[in-house]
Amino acid sequence: MKHLGNRVEELKIAYIGGGSRGWAWGLMSDLAHCPDMSGTVALYDIDFEAAKNNEIIGNKYNEAEGCVGFWDYQAVETIEAALTGADFVVISILPGTFDEMESDVHWPEKYGIYQSVGDTTGPGGIIRAMRTLPMYEVIGKKIGECCPDAWVISYTNPMTLCVKTLYRVFPEIKAFGCCHEVFGTQKFLAKIVEEKLGIENVERGDIKVNPVSVNHYTWLTEANYKGIDLFPIYRDYCLSHPDGHKGGTVDNNWMNNHFASEELVKMQLFLQFNVIAAAGDRHLAEFCPGNWFLKDPERVKEMHFNLTPVFWRKEDLKNRLERAKRLASGAEQVVISETGEEGTRQMRAILGLGDLITNVNMPNVGQAPDLPFGAVVETNAVFRAGSVRPVAAGELPASIAPMVKRVCAVQELTSEGIAERDLKKIFSAFVNDPLVTCSYRDAEKMFKEMCENTKKYLGMYDLLVL
Amino acid sequence: MKHLGNRVEELKIAYIGGGSRGWAWGLMSDLAHCPDMSGTVALYDIDFEAAKNNEIIGNKYNEAEGCVGFWDYQAVETIEAALTGADFVVISILPGTFDEMESDVHWPEKYGIYQSVGDTTGPGGIIRAMRTLPMYEVIGKKIGECCPDAWVISYTNPMTLCVKTLYRVFPEIKAFGCCHEVFGTQKFLAKIVEEKLGIENVERGDIKVNPVSVNHYTWLTEANYKGIDLFPIYRDYCLSHPDGHKGGTVDNNWMNNHFASEELVKMQLFLQFNVIAAAGDRHLAEFCPGNWFLKDPERVKEMHFNLTPVFWRKEDLKNRLERAKRLASGAEQVVISETGEEGTRQMRAILGLGDLITNVNMPNVGQAPDLPFGAVVETNAVFRAGSVRPVAAGELPASIAPMVKRVCAVQELTSEGIAERDLKKIFSAFVNDPLVTCSYRDAEKMFKEMCENTKKYLGMYDLLVL
Amino acid sequence: MKHLGNRVEELKIAYIGGGSRGWAWGLMSDLAHCPDMSGTVALYDIDFEAAKNNEIIGNKYNEAEGCVGFWDYQAVETIEAALTGADFVVISILPGTFDEMESDVHWPEKYGIYQSVGDTTGPGGIIRAMRTLPMYEVIGKKIGECCPDAWVISYTNPMTLCVKTLYRVFPEIKAFGCCHEVFGTQKFLAKIVEEKLGIENVERGDIKVNPVSVNHYTWLTEANYKGIDLFPIYRDYCLSHPDGHKGGTVDNNWMNNHFASEELVKMQLFLQFNVIAAAGDRHLAEFCPGNWFLKDPERVKEMHFNLTPVFWRKEDLKNRLERAKRLASGAEQVVISETGEEGTRQMRAILGLGDLITNVNMPNVGQAPDLPFGAVVETNAVFRAGSVRPVAAGELPASIAPMVKRVCAVQELTSEGIAERDLKKIFSAFVNDPLVTCSYRDAEKMFKEMCENTKKYLGMYDLLVL
Amino acid sequence: MKHLGNRVEELKIAYIGGGSRGWAWGLMSDLAHCPDMSGTVALYDIDFEAAKNNEIIGNKYNEAEGCVGFWDYQAVETIEAALTGADFVVISILPGTFDEMESDVHWPEKYGIYQSVGDTTGPGGIIRAMRTLPMYEVIGKKIGECCPDAWVISYTNPMTLCVKTLYRVFPEIKAFGCCHEVFGTQKFLAKIVEEKLGIENVERGDIKVNPVSVNHYTWLTEANYKGIDLFPIYRDYCLSHPDGHKGGTVDNNWMNNHFASEELVKMQLFLQFNVIAAAGDRHLAEFCPGNWFLKDPERVKEMHFNLTPVFWRKEDLKNRLERAKRLASGAEQVVISETGEEGTRQMRAILGLGDLITNVNMPNVGQAPDLPFGAVVETNAVFRAGSVRPVAAGELPASIAPMVKRVCAVQELTSEGIAERDLKKIFSAFVNDPLVTCSYRDAEKMFKEMCENTKKYLGMYDLLVL
Repeated sequence: MKHLGNRVEELKIAYIGGGSRGWAWGLMSDLAHCPDMSGTVALYDIDFEAAKNNEIIGNKYNEAEGCVGFWDYQAVETIEAALTGADFVVISILPGTFDEMESDVHWPEKYGIYQSVGDTTGPGGIIRAMRTLPMYEVIGKKIGECCPDAWVISYTNPMTLCVKTLYRVFPEIKAFGCCHEVFGTQKFLAKIVEEKLGIENVERGDIKVNPVSVNHYTWLTEANYKGIDLFPIYRDYCLSHPDGHKGGTVDNNWMNNHFASEELVKMQLFLQFNVIAAAGDRHLAEFCPGNWFLKDPERVKEMHFNLTPVFWRKEDLKNRLERAKRLASGAEQVVISETGEEGTRQMRAILGLGDLITNVNMPNVGQAPDLPFGAVVETNAVFRAGSVRPVAAGELPASIAPMVKRVCAVQELTSEGIAERDLKKIFSAFVNDPLVTCSYRDAEKMFKEMCENTKKYLGMYDLLVL
Repeated sequence: MKHLGNRVEELKIAYIGGGSRGWAWGLMSDLAHCPDMSGTVALYDIDFEAAKNNEIIGNKYNEAEGCVGFWDYQAVETIEAALTGADFVVISILPGTFDEMESDVHWPEKYGIYQSVGDTTGPGGIIRAMRTLPMYEVIGKKIGECCPDAWVISYTNPMTLCVKTLYRVFPEIKAFGCCHEVFGTQKFLAKIVEEKLGIENVERGDIKVNPVSVNHYTWLTEANYKGIDLFPIYRDYCLSHPDGHKGGTVDNNWMNNHFASEELVKMQLFLQFNVIAAAGDRHLAEFCPGNWFLKDPERVKEMHFNLTPVFWRKEDLKNRLERAKRLASGAEQVVISETGEEGTRQMRAILGLGDLITNVNMPNVGQAPDLPFGAVVETNAVFRAGSVRPVAAGELPASIAPMVKRVCAVQELTSEGIAERDLKKIFSAFVNDPLVTCSYRDAEKMFKEMCENTKKYLGMYDLLVL
Repeated sequence: MKHLGNRVEELKIAYIGGGSRGWAWGLMSDLAHCPDMSGTVALYDIDFEAAKNNEIIGNKYNEAEGCVGFWDYQAVETIEAALTGADFVVISILPGTFDEMESDVHWPEKYGIYQSVGDTTGPGGIIRAMRTLPMYEVIGKKIGECCPDAWVISYTNPMTLCVKTLYRVFPEIKAFGCCHEVFGTQKFLAKIVEEKLGIENVERGDIKVNPVSVNHYTWLTEANYKGIDLFPIYRDYCLSHPDGHKGGTVDNNWMNNHFASEELVKMQLFLQFNVIAAAGDRHLAEFCPGNWFLKDPERVKEMHFNLTPVFWRKEDLKNRLERAKRLASGAEQVVISETGEEGTRQMRAILGLGDLITNVNMPNVGQAPDLPFGAVVETNAVFRAGSVRPVAAGELPASIAPMVKRVCAVQELTSEGIAERDLKKIFSAFVNDPLVTCSYRDAEKMFKEMCENTKKYLGMYDLLVL
Repeated sequence: MKHLGNRVEELKIAYIGGGSRGWAWGLMSDLAHCPDMSGTVALYDIDFEAAKNNEIIGNKYNEAEGCVGFWDYQAVETIEAALTGADFVVISILPGTFDEMESDVHWPEKYGIYQSVGDTTGPGGIIRAMRTLPMYEVIGKKIGECCPDAWVISYTNPMTLCVKTLYRVFPEIKAFGCCHEVFGTQKFLAKIVEEKLGIENVERGDIKVNPVSVNHYTWLTEANYKGIDLFPIYRDYCLSHPDGHKGGTVDNNWMNNHFASEELVKMQLFLQFNVIAAAGDRHLAEFCPGNWFLKDPERVKEMHFNLTPVFWRKEDLKNRLERAKRLASGAEQVVISETGEEGTRQMRAILGLGDLITNVNMPNVGQAPDLPFGAVVETNAVFRAGSVRPVAAGELPASIAPMVKRVCAVQELTSEGIAERDLKKIFSAFVNDPLVTCSYRDAEKMFKEMCENTKKYLGMYDLLVL
């Protein structure tokens, strides 16, 4: 790394995973868009060919229109080759395949349990954690060996438990987890400000929020626009929009799109608990007691959000694979456009090229004083030269404490159970998950079956004891 | 009070409530049985006649066979008269009548929610708290005015929230909540020791336990008999008794008795969570997610415990009222026998007549370091001259942390909501209660109806907002 | 207040104190320099004439060259008139006169105790707190009555205890204490970066630091310049400059200037404790055990800093009073120049006109997890629209924990003692202060005499008990 | 171990150290006096002959008059032989010789620093810790290997740091540190009760106290005799005895005896801080700022306590060695008498032969919530079958918090420095010790010299860096 005061050259970024694309191309585009950093991106994926393909695509960005940040993409065959000498490590892996995810998401439906995402919490999130965390143990240890001083940005779900695992296996690591869900709520609040206050072009960045809790179940205890407290305005809006927010274009219409919603879940949560839930409704619903929003598909429809089926993901993957081919062959041109993700802005801030305040997931050192120290929590953090420090978010409002403390404790127990390969402990977490509304005995059966379904990736557990 | 070194005379005990009997007579019997204390018991009840009746009965104990502790019972017409000059205050009130309790316990059944007790937690416990805590506010304040140095023993349910309320309105109070549920589990363990180790006459007091958590959902993280760790022995027992403990006599058979059980709930909890749940199964089941043990009456039967219907309580009350008449008239003789309750032993210890270690409910000052400081928790405490100090129970085992933290946070929120007369906050607690397994909308409806049903005692809330 | 998106008009600032000048004029200059805020400044001082004079001077700034921020200055006769309607309150009072300060600073010299400042800690700081905090109680309560939503910036020493007092009497207050001492250390580090790395014009703002501890005894656990860890560089510098930093001009030469130093104290502290002490040496020395740097005037000379005598302050005050006359009469022109203080930048950030990260003094809500919650601590904070949130600084390094915890506990005890007007408690703090190196009996004598010397301002204490 | 319900046979106790006698014989006597335990005591000392001698003496107790507890004493040549199979481990070692202690205690006098004991805190205590803790590391690890389930009783000074070390190297250890200093204060209070209340034969055990803080600097926040609060009585006593307590016999007269005192230190501390200091004055004085009670020998005389010179210890050792010979040869008879130490009562309680509440030193798990978790603190604990649990002592009174937090932080830093063999950190603790009242530079010189003086036992540190 060569720091020239107002720009940095010869950086090395190690990208772990990303063979399944979306994320990697976004980062490529953002890097190309950023004028004050350049260097090498080492691409490592267990599917080497996918990495190789990304190498070709990545290098095309250097010639795309508007490129101001130039990077040398290199697929490498070992994780050690990727990590050695890295200044930053980006981790974004798909643990297992969508076949495993199909079991994670849809198998519980046999027991009347519906999951709108199924990768973070609920039965699906816990089983996914069982196969992901052992992979993260390996990555964390390798970072400790190959590039202990690197900054590590983790995007993989379940976010909280992945970040926790990195710190567990290598406590000195400088890692944080990133997620854009809060941004979406900021944008929603920006629209409300525009509508309610008659102001044009309100920017997300001007909606100042104080997030606290755990990833995908984040809550804002403050929201302010230029000195204006947004809580009463948001309350008005919620009360006057009992049918939800109709702001989307056709593509975003929740009836056609598995990611869209009309924000009814978060509005109802606000009206009851007086704190702004700040993630997509699909995520929020999964952390609430199962009967609130995910009782059955009718209730989901009633709340104007969607269950994202895995067959859609499989389709989507096919499309992306084909697009990958087109991009690599030149049949389709790479295009530089900002993704709205903050990975590159975070890197810049850490390099001293501009302070940044944004939400991240890090071990609790006091930022959430009534959650366990050491648990990974989501709050704002200050990114500055050589430093990422959480902002002290203060205590949880009493109204949401039961929900958040419960979820956080389930996550801590899941983490401990997986660390110890102790299926009893993992099931103790599973059966206490808010979505596991079936009977105790059914929960046992379901857990066993879901492990069985994905056993290809669970070789480190003694499944016979189940 | 006159301390003669090894006995104390001229003590004054204020007994608040107890008109509905059982508890008061038990204390009378225990006091009569205790040779080193004597003095006055002032009886105050909102039903003065009931208090008057108890005065007559109480004074009969002085002439009963075997009486060694002599007390002057006096019904008084005001709470101030009872409290002024008191060394000890015993509180055991029935908040409202069994008609209110009928709504608490049985109304939720319309929504598929079954409660085995309904006075501590669940929908019933929360509504009961709404009418009880305002009464406790009055009592706590009066104690602060009339006898700020008195020791206060509270027996009323919901125990945790009642004790919390006393400290909220008068922070310098010396109060604790007492409950015999842990004793039952100690006795159960004693029987297991007898059976498994072939030892005869194992005493409850020799089963040394380390309780932690909240009342009626207490867990033992250690259990030991003369140096022998009871965990492996208990595990063996649980594994070999899948149909429960068959130790009861006819009277205790769970099929005929609304308080009995065959301990299947606590055994299953132990096998899963590896910590000994230490309350009656009827209580334990209510703190667990509703679908585990209280899904429906069939599940209850399957788990060999019972729902205690309020009609039984009404019957039982009638019997007790008739017995009261008989005792007062002399048609039935009062009989002195130890109840197994520890109230008098606690008083003796506080007076310096013999140390005592037993479980109590007190505000957390470090004894349960991962529960909120100030929350009322149940652990052991050391009773000695002029002092009751909790024993540091250590952190909750991770396996039960999700359950206990959730419940404790719900209680804290209930307490705050009632203190502020804020129905929104109270309902935020209600809808997060583990037993509230119905839909969100049904929960709202149920809450409203249960308030309506008991509104005679809820005048301090603005029910119109519901 | 009228918010126009990128500027704010009709603000009201209440300025409490400031009659003794320096600070008030600086704020006037900074306000005139700031283009996006305007409104009224209400000036309240117990010396109404001084306030009136400041009104004249303040209004002259509106016509000074380069003025872009226009403000209407109005002296008011009551604190209520100043506070009512205020958006911001600035407090900068002189508690008592320099005669009292003369006793604070110099009386202890009779007992061999030398103080370089004497307004924050040590015997002088504690006696000063005794007369200041009762004034702050009044101010805090008035804020609660007149402008409970205003943001309050406190500059008075002892900073920590003044801010603590505001929160004690009005817990909902939005107050913080500001101090420029950390800035000085950032500038010192900037110079070192220039010297050691051969970089020109390094700006203070590019030295990113993580401060933690209490005001005037602040320590930096991280210091970074554009990704470069400054700890090894600082160590090199300290090792190679055993005679101190010779960067000052004549005016800043420590031999001629009562505020200057050659940074030897902080360099020696760094070499021993491996954390960067970040306040002027005069302040740092006062928090260390008395024999380290303040044993006697020779030791002070040896460490190349100065004791600031109160006669100098008296002289300086005279000069300022004369200057005040000249400025008011127009004999001297007011000149607009940035002071480097951050008061106006903080206001702008709170109004949503630009985020700011800087160090402040606020009650501990987790930002310093091993200091008592509720104690006022100094860390970074994030200033944004409607919000000031401390940055979680993490645990104190073990090497400085004994010093900082001791000092913080002495402050907490001083605060409690003054709140309760309990001279015994105040003396318990006094005799534990690191500077009180005399015998116990001498400490008692000194405390009594210092109270006696300043009794004009200590009418709220029962000094007869001494 | 064979548990027969009300007695235990075939116990194995490993005694590590004790060659220098006093302690070992006391335990022998107590064991002989205790009717319900028997078994083997394995004696290990680095001086095998001393152990062998103790074997002979120990076995004589079996034939002494009044022996009811029979034990087979066996000197062993390796620590592994002692530990393997042990149920209890008693550790009481002398780290180094009295020559090292001579430097610890008396060398600082060159710098005007007087130490009344010099084995716990102050310059002497820290240097002693430097040579003791590495020995404890070995012992702790060996226990982890040879008898991980054994209960470990540690008597060696510096107590706090020795116990901390055991937990550091083997976190699962079941260890606690024991000290009789609190007993002495209980006896003193008992005498005061006799005198002030005219009661005869008040027993130490009836003085119920709530100790908190660290060993040898323990404070009682409650003291009660049969319901009577002793604080006002103690205050009266202190006020009316400005010349100290004249209760001793000739032997206990402080002028003739290096361990006696007239309690003036603790009485003065009480009158100022309103908490009862509960250790011998010689210990208490060492934890207070050096100028309070140890300024010079005159001040010590004035306060009616004594500095214990090491030449006295050397003399005393000679006497004990000679006595050892006499006891082994039979020239002197062993005599069974209770020592008042609680080691055997603790063992009995852990074996389930009778509950015990007494003060011990254990890692903080909440019993002292405002001291760092994990620091070793002294509070009461409950000893019962298979369990030793600290009593939650509650927060430190504000008046003593500065003193106790400072001392505790110095100990934590000493522990960390020694664990890391980091002389810089150790000196950071050293220079912050309350007794180190000399100049910074003298402290450096003294530290270096004291290390040099005892370097024979400091081979694990790189002393050349000093």
